[in-house]
Amino acid sequence: MPIDPIPPVADAPLWLEDLEPGRVFRFGDYAVTREEVIEFATRFDPQPFHIDDAAAAAHPLFGRICASGMHTMAMSHLLQMRGFQQVGIHPLAGVGMDEMRLHAPVYPGDTLHIAVELTDVRPSRSKPDRGLVSYLTTVSNQDDLAVMTYRSSLFLARRPTD
Amino acid sequence: MPIDPIPPVADAPLWLEDLEPGRVFRFGDYAVTREEVIEFATRFDPQPFHIDDAAAAAHPLFGRICASGMHTMAMSHLLQMRGFQQVGIHPLAGVGMDEMRLHAPVYPGDTLHIAVELTDVRPSRSKPDRGLVSYLTTVSNQDDLAVMTYRSSLFLARRPTD
Repeated sequence: MPIDPIPPVADAPLWLEDLEPGRVFRFGDYAVTREEVIEFATRFDPQPFHIDDAAAAAHPLFGRICASGMHTMAMSHLLQMRGFQQVGIHPLAGVGMDEMRLHAPVYPGDTLHIAVELTDVRPSRSKPDRGLVSYLTTVSNQDDLAVMTYRSSLFLARRPTD
Repeated sequence: MPIDPIPPVADAPLWLEDLEPGRVFRFGDYAVTREEVIEFATRFDPQPFHIDDAAAAAHPLFGRICASGMHTMAMSHLLQMRGFQQVGIHPLAGVGMDEMRLHAPVYPGDTLHIAVELTDVRPSRSKPDRGLVSYLTTVSNQDDLAVMTYRSSLFLARRPTD
């Protein structure tokens, strides 16, 4: 399947007609810092093992402070949206997300990258100006260990006919 | 079904055995500010309609700046985790999320609250010290309009036997 290892900065937008299932985009990197892990968790996911060294050390699964899954999703989302802008994909709106799974902890010091594989591209039945793009995102760390996967979809404009 | 409108601050943790499907927890409120909408989107979802007034005004669906779906999920997550702590639910870890759908835009000035309905509670087959709690979260605004729904699940400890 075609792969874009280093996304170009796109001069022209990609329309629905420019995309096909099986295409994979790879975007990186996001350096995970201890400061941001604690700051994000304090704001949005104040569970002790994301914030407190002693609580994390005593945790049966983590051993040390790890990033909130919500934070990992947000970091991945930034890589995805910035990457989409670089290749010329400008979503009309997001639709939703399915099958998000946390596979392994994300720790301060990790560096994340993502692979976005298009799984379905189809015109809308009711709105002739747009279509639905579905894709599987895999978030991996510096060891290429998959830490999170999720499926999502977005509305993208079709190529103008005039 | 039983409803906890104002969660008490729990003296004792709730174990897996203390929860049953059908129970609903309601947690609020989160005031959505323009400053935070723009700040969050700039960091994690820099699409123009989350950040720029003119781009949002020209957008076919939104009309004015609206919150990133990722931000709405994070705000909901805070209400949920803070609320769980208040009622004594202390998750071991999150497992994943399914069927997240964006139903309506979230705008600065909105106030969000959530309903968390337990849909399944079952002991782990392989780990006798824990079980899986699954639930449906509905995020609503001040008009009780559902803006987002999602299903998620977490590991919770069973009541110690000794």
